[in-house]
Amino acid sequence: MHFDHAGIATDDAAGLADLYTDLFDTHVAHEETFDGMNVVFLSLGNGYFELLEPTDDEGAIASYLDSNGPGIHHLAVATGDIDAALAHAREMDIDLIDEEPRGGAWGHEVAFLHPKSTGGILVEFVQH
Amino acid sequence: MHFDHAGIATDDAAGLADLYTDLFDTHVAHEETFDGMNVVFLSLGNGYFELLEPTDDEGAIASYLDSNGPGIHHLAVATGDIDAALAHAREMDIDLIDEEPRGGAWGHEVAFLHPKSTGGILVEFVQH
Repeated sequence: MHFDHAGIATDDAAGLADLYTDLFDTHVAHEETFDGMNVVFLSLGNGYFELLEPTDDEGAIASYLDSNGPGIHHLAVATGDIDAALAHAREMDIDLIDEEPRGGAWGHEVAFLHPKSTGGILVEFVQH
Repeated sequence: MHFDHAGIATDDAAGLADLYTDLFDTHVAHEETFDGMNVVFLSLGNGYFELLEPTDDEGAIASYLDSNGPGIHHLAVATGDIDAALAHAREMDIDLIDEEPRGGAWGHEVAFLHPKSTGGILVEFVQH
């Protein structure tokens, strides 16, 4: 597996994208409105920062911002076989948020693992 | 610039390294005791997870754990010219924690930027 992206909760994805493209000398690789969020993927060459801005008051990111303010929300690790990755996590007694892969941003298959099983980190498996 | 690592605060770097090497099918690339911490770099092929475990009650990671518990502490972006990266950040009116690069783990040069200037994210510039 390899690093895919860090998910960043923000209340201003466009503004933060402008700041990061300048600060990190990078560019926007993809953007879309997905699941009640404006989602912007900034290319880091070998991976992405995924900026997540809620477009309404519902959902996990809106709730995260209410509780924590803007910040790093999750880390995503890419796998070529998300079903096998989930099956192995289950064998390890990792608590799964998503028992099965589901459609994520950018058309990828994703599944989240519960932070209580993974050292306090919200981990996402992603398959392109 | 490109992604280098995500820094993860933990009270058990060895235990979390064991868990992640199994879960992510990866390996420990480097470990050392540095600046009052046990530091473990897990290879993700295209970057690292840096596990940070304080060895005493002092320091930024011990303080982070007290306030937040285990979790994602910072994101590090690699540059080939950390002096130029810092100079550019200064021109952008980014608030710098380190005005000059300093020696970090694994013999790298590092400098941190203040989260209040970078969307709530503690950003590290790193030059190998």
